[in-house]
Amino acid sequence: MQKDIKIEDLTTPCVLVLDPVVRNNCIKMNERAHSLGVDVRAHMKTHKTVEIGKYQFEKNQNKDQVIKIIVSTLSEARFFSKDFSNILYATPISPNKVDEAYQIHLDIERLNIMFDNIEHVNSMVEFSKTNPKYSKRWSVFLKIDCGYHRAGASPELQSTTDLVHLITKGEFKDYFDFQGIYSHSGHSYKCNTPEEIKELAKEEARVTGDYGKKLKSLGYHVENVSIGSTPVCSHLPDDLTSYGVTEIHPGNYTFYDLMQMELGNCSIDDVGVHVLATIVSVYPERNEILIDAGSLALSSDPGCTHLKNRNSPNFGIVYDDTNLRIVAASQEVSKVQSSNGSPIDFSKYKIGSKIRIIPNHSCLTAAMFSNYHVINKDNNIFKTFKPNKYW
Amino acid sequence: MQKDIKIEDLTTPCVLVLDPVVRNNCIKMNERAHSLGVDVRAHMKTHKTVEIGKYQFEKNQNKDQVIKIIVSTLSEARFFSKDFSNILYATPISPNKVDEAYQIHLDIERLNIMFDNIEHVNSMVEFSKTNPKYSKRWSVFLKIDCGYHRAGASPELQSTTDLVHLITKGEFKDYFDFQGIYSHSGHSYKCNTPEEIKELAKEEARVTGDYGKKLKSLGYHVENVSIGSTPVCSHLPDDLTSYGVTEIHPGNYTFYDLMQMELGNCSIDDVGVHVLATIVSVYPERNEILIDAGSLALSSDPGCTHLKNRNSPNFGIVYDDTNLRIVAASQEVSKVQSSNGSPIDFSKYKIGSKIRIIPNHSCLTAAMFSNYHVINKDNNIFKTFKPNKYW
Ligand SMILES: Cc1ncc(COP(=O)(O)O)c(C=O)c1O
Ligand SMILES: Cc1ncc(COP(=O)(O)O)c(C=O)c1O
Repeated sequence: MQKDIKIEDLTTPCVLVLDPVVRNNCIKMNERAHSLGVDVRAHMKTHKTVEIGKYQFEKNQNKDQVIKIIVSTLSEARFFSKDFSNILYATPISPNKVDEAYQIHLDIERLNIMFDNIEHVNSMVEFSKTNPKYSKRWSVFLKIDCGYHRAGASPELQSTTDLVHLITKGEFKDYFDFQGIYSHSGHSYKCNTPEEIKELAKEEARVTGDYGKKLKSLGYHVENVSIGSTPVCSHLPDDLTSYGVTEIHPGNYTFYDLMQMELGNCSIDDVGVHVLATIVSVYPERNEILIDAGSLALSSDPGCTHLKNRNSPNFGIVYDDTNLRIVAASQEVSKVQSSNGSPIDFSKYKIGSKIRIIPNHSCLTAAMFSNYHVINKDNNIFKTFKPNKYW
Repeated sequence: MQKDIKIEDLTTPCVLVLDPVVRNNCIKMNERAHSLGVDVRAHMKTHKTVEIGKYQFEKNQNKDQVIKIIVSTLSEARFFSKDFSNILYATPISPNKVDEAYQIHLDIERLNIMFDNIEHVNSMVEFSKTNPKYSKRWSVFLKIDCGYHRAGASPELQSTTDLVHLITKGEFKDYFDFQGIYSHSGHSYKCNTPEEIKELAKEEARVTGDYGKKLKSLGYHVENVSIGSTPVCSHLPDDLTSYGVTEIHPGNYTFYDLMQMELGNCSIDDVGVHVLATIVSVYPERNEILIDAGSLALSSDPGCTHLKNRNSPNFGIVYDDTNLRIVAASQEVSKVQSSNGSPIDFSKYKIGSKIRIIPNHSCLTAAMFSNYHVINKDNNIFKTFKPNKYW
């Protein structure tokens, strides 16, 4: 425990994690899910820390609920396997990662693998056949394309249902333990209004839910029907279970960010991660401030550029004065201007002063740092969290 | 030395550095500079490795040339101080970094500090006054705004010349060793054609050169007049010294990237850094490939979006088939499509195959990795370079 470190003493740029905010975000998401009768399968990719992974299951009233998490890389799967025993690696498995994935699967209760193509199935079977001493079945999820068109097999193709047949009742049934289906609505980040997100939430629930129902009607056991993204999980229909959905899988909600604010999924006080920067120069003649947090601190994600009422370009806003915006980010410095052109108060924003920035995209921003300074409600740093890094 | 590691065996995503290409880029830039009668003050920020820093001075025919480098953070200054003794920290100094900067300055011949505001000068003087046992003069460069409008004092303001007076002949003359003036033409990345870059190169040379001449005519000694950016340094006027320029300070040229290709500053074979990715799934029904290199491997820099003939959005192209482009990047995966819509040859691009990507912005992409796999002309990995990370 590092007591007594003050924000003023930190080397910048660095990242602050607002502990009470993050815990509250986790509780609220769980409460909403449970009130709707579904579980949360919590994604770790936004924060990549064991500590916040645990927050995602804190005050979980539902004693029977399995603690189940999602990771975005095998390196994360290994990292979290010391503290979590039911993990989903949510990227379609590539043949060169099968061996490593299997080793992790052996070490814990289950490492769930994602597939959406016969090649994924073949490479797992191939591994099991050539390593007969490993007789543990692969635990797998079928990734369904619910309209995002990134990963996922189309629920409309017969070949998709053939895959389910192959691993549950067909030739490869002895190698697999089919866990269910999973979709991800990444296109929710392109919505324009909360109403559009609400519609998309219903659509994802319907597309994925209907496919689950179809598989069941064909006689397949489908334990989990998993949907979500933070926008969708912030606008779920009240009758979610009627669609056949059993769980949601958000990730970004732990931290939220400027994109989530602008999309209408949270307020500024729900944002759990701030970048701390120092003003390194001021240019009153151009009404501009230069800070020491550039693309390597903030990431170069331009955020929700499609939103019409948005000041663009924009790589984040200043927490204490949201009229101040990062209008350009270079590698190590960024330019701050006032959105409405009003004169910046240079008696307040002096060279050497620190400012806090709400980043566009917290997943990418947090990943830029090797440790997070965790602050309590009095703005004192009382912990350091070290995220998993790289691959 | 790690002999015999093959590209096929690498865990993806990872980054490949093409050793012969990088060395050649360095030699060519030095040759051009020397043929024009100026020095290269080499920026380290793109690669952040001691090894490539040394390549930037290899085969340097000019025996008298001082080996002088530039860094973008104090962490880099400390990192490179073991191997380089003349370093310029090219971000205006903030008061909270003065102490650390001075310690590095004491350890080597000189850590040059950048200033463009009286506050920078005051904070250095304040440090010297309160630490009288440290009598080494601060070695400083004045940052000039040549039209980029990011950092830099305007050469048109009297206050700018007053700053030079203050530290060379005025009240604070005993605290400083004035090294000269420095501009950076980051706006060259917004040019549309090589002709525009050529014009900008002349303009930067003129603005900064003229200000250097003015200072000299006022009786100030200006040893270094430093200009550049990789685009500008690729299109320098033949009569560069007649403008009064003494040195250029490019950084990105060590690696180049897709932006530099598209701007007309290099060819595809000059790009010294490739991201290696694995195909994790294929979607023939949508003519798309999914790879395991997302924004955390490539960065989310959208590149030169202002160029009219460019396929956008675009986060990089496939090296072996430049018709294949990354059209969308999520945190850990990206989508590849063919630019002209022609059918992708899925017998060649199979799940598990590896592809090499030319990234949009090599400075940001390289910074995403903890080590670089360095390959020779036969595509064998023969070294690993570890870049400096964080702040
Ligand atoms: C496969 C998958 N599942 C779940 C999530 C979580 O989505 P969000 O971060 O919007 O909550 C993501 C995020 O990208 C994802 O890629
Ligand atoms: C102050 C400064 N000098 C020099 C450079 C090198 O420019 P380039 O990478 O275009 O060569 C940069 C790059 O951003 C810079 O910020």
